[in-house]
Amino acid sequence: MNNFEWKIKKTASQSRARTGVITTPHGRINTPAFIFCGTKAALKSINVEEARRCGTQIILSNTYHLMLQPGSEVIAAHGGLHKFMNWKGPMLTDSGGFQIFSLGHGTIADEIKGRNSDNNRNISLIKILEEGSLFKSYIDGSNQLLSPEKSINLQRKIGADLILVLDECTPFHVDKIYTANSMKRSHRWSKRSINSFQTNNVFISCTGSAGPQALYGIIQGGIYYELRDESIEFNIGNPNFFGLAIGGSLGSSKEQMYELVKYTSTKLGNKHPVHLLGIGDPLDIWNLVKWGIDTFDCVSPTRLARHGAALMKTKSGKINIKNSAYKDDLLPLDINCNCTICNNYSKSYLHHLFKSAELLGFQLISIHNIHFMNNLMTYIRKAIEDDNFDEAENRWYLN
Amino acid sequence: MNNFEWKIKKTASQSRARTGVITTPHGRINTPAFIFCGTKAALKSINVEEARRCGTQIILSNTYHLMLQPGSEVIAAHGGLHKFMNWKGPMLTDSGGFQIFSLGHGTIADEIKGRNSDNNRNISLIKILEEGSLFKSYIDGSNQLLSPEKSINLQRKIGADLILVLDECTPFHVDKIYTANSMKRSHRWSKRSINSFQTNNVFISCTGSAGPQALYGIIQGGIYYELRDESIEFNIGNPNFFGLAIGGSLGSSKEQMYELVKYTSTKLGNKHPVHLLGIGDPLDIWNLVKWGIDTFDCVSPTRLARHGAALMKTKSGKINIKNSAYKDDLLPLDINCNCTICNNYSKSYLHHLFKSAELLGFQLISIHNIHFMNNLMTYIRKAIEDDNFDEAENRWYLN
Repeated sequence: MNNFEWKIKKTASQSRARTGVITTPHGRINTPAFIFCGTKAALKSINVEEARRCGTQIILSNTYHLMLQPGSEVIAAHGGLHKFMNWKGPMLTDSGGFQIFSLGHGTIADEIKGRNSDNNRNISLIKILEEGSLFKSYIDGSNQLLSPEKSINLQRKIGADLILVLDECTPFHVDKIYTANSMKRSHRWSKRSINSFQTNNVFISCTGSAGPQALYGIIQGGIYYELRDESIEFNIGNPNFFGLAIGGSLGSSKEQMYELVKYTSTKLGNKHPVHLLGIGDPLDIWNLVKWGIDTFDCVSPTRLARHGAALMKTKSGKINIKNSAYKDDLLPLDINCNCTICNNYSKSYLHHLFKSAELLGFQLISIHNIHFMNNLMTYIRKAIEDDNFDEAENRWYLN
Repeated sequence: MNNFEWKIKKTASQSRARTGVITTPHGRINTPAFIFCGTKAALKSINVEEARRCGTQIILSNTYHLMLQPGSEVIAAHGGLHKFMNWKGPMLTDSGGFQIFSLGHGTIADEIKGRNSDNNRNISLIKILEEGSLFKSYIDGSNQLLSPEKSINLQRKIGADLILVLDECTPFHVDKIYTANSMKRSHRWSKRSINSFQTNNVFISCTGSAGPQALYGIIQGGIYYELRDESIEFNIGNPNFFGLAIGGSLGSSKEQMYELVKYTSTKLGNKHPVHLLGIGDPLDIWNLVKWGIDTFDCVSPTRLARHGAALMKTKSGKINIKNSAYKDDLLPLDINCNCTICNNYSKSYLHHLFKSAELLGFQLISIHNIHFMNNLMTYIRKAIEDDNFDEAENRWYLN
């Protein structure tokens, strides 16, 4: 793992907020950082050069989607995901577990955030076995088994820098006994993931994968603090983990999530970069950076953009450009924003693009939102370096 | 009109092919040139900076679409279309007549090219009156009258550099009497367009329009050579026209179109830049540049891209990236193409984007296609300058 390094640069005096650097074979990530979702090896409506110009440091893709289309072999034949999608910076893949959860229990966001979505259950998940997870392909209906070994093998071929052990991401509505059993199984899967990772974590030139990789363990235990303790203990001492991710249900309210993340991350210490899976609302980032979260990921910047929502430095956090109030608005989204969209386009033009169903609208608001998130993280890193986090947070909403 | 200039640089010895420069207040256009369609003030899935990097010289928008959404007042309030959509180079707007035709008689491409599409007739067009054309808005169903005066007034507010008189674009399936009557009405509309243009062709600072504009007359007469003669005579001596466009039906086959354009453009001389409305297939461009056509426009580069078709230097002219043959193809679309797409992406990746319904696919193939068209025009200009057009045409298909 000498291609990878984790270094804390500065810790705030009033909280656990910290800046750091994750070094990977594809470059460095200054933390706290936001990881943008290129689920199927694409950032939806913006290209990777544009993403780089917006300050993007790292992109993730989803193993579950890529294993079904185009398949890991196609990506491996390119020399890995970086070359496949032309992204030269660091990348992360999840294990596929997150999607198993999503398929089994409704939408990911609903469940992590505790919104009950039983009505929306998708029956693509057939069964969770000790061996792995059995599900139906959404592409061709074929039965697929995702085991820890298969997940690691797929992630090796896909070739992201940071990869995750296979876990089951428990939903909010399951009880403590289910959560405990699931967590123990995830721990067993974790050991099998490590074994598989150790067996073939070597550079396999351009016919195999993109190069050396580093493994993240995942803290499970749902909303049950004792289970979180047990999972922390399982993960934290394991020398095979470069990083640690906090997974599973985080409660039914923001307050419950903040408490749970605070409780968990406070116990994680400084030896690992800590990733919080699937959370990336700016308000959540402000609150959770304080408890030592180093990286976040969420589909929201590009998903919101496709619905016409532009991120703003306000307490409400966004405006919807489709609102008729913007028809004649000659001002940019934010006169203080220096993204190429705010420098060159009026709200009126962006409104027009959405009214006219022009694809360009998705792209332009995605650029603003990605720039917004990267700008937010840069601002937060500076606030930590300057050790004036609370003041900086207040000032953020005024600018 | 001293902001505008038309200069022929070089004429081929073996044909009427010529290079020239159209000077506008927003820069120069080296001809022969391709005009890209930003129908509703957007190039669908690519942004204007990307279009500029692909070598784009000039973009057109459609008055018909813009009058309905967002409305000319909104564009004028921005200081014109250039500022509205952030395109700093030359622009052209049509008069709206082309769309009247399209609404009345089926799709534009079908009719110009003589494909019968009676079954697809759209009844949005209510009636063509002497006063103008009465139609139903596709946005809200309201009745709208587009008169020559209104078209020019709209185009003044929209503020493109090059604007067109209002005409009716006759379809292929109408007879000579209809075509003759339509042409004569178009000529009367043309005079009214000129009157309206002369009345207010002054710079109206940033609250009115983008600046001075130059007017194009349109040669009508359908497939009837005597009528084309009559229309040429009407247009060619008119001192108010900076440029001339060839409009209306061009026949039912490529051969008929080539003959008709040859006949018409040969009589147009050298005093005006000559635009061929709605034609832009590379094969057609190769054939029609020879007869003195200076500018072309067509929606095809971006429309084809949205269907997965990438332009190629082959006789068939394109490949469809959705074809399963490209699933494992690690080569770029064209190894000799130096666009950013061919430099950075495999056919396999582009195939994957279309199989996954990722919006990025439209964007990446649009970039290739726009680069392709600009590269074609650059290559053609050089062939004319070097006076080896035929040899260059043969070589084009071999590279």
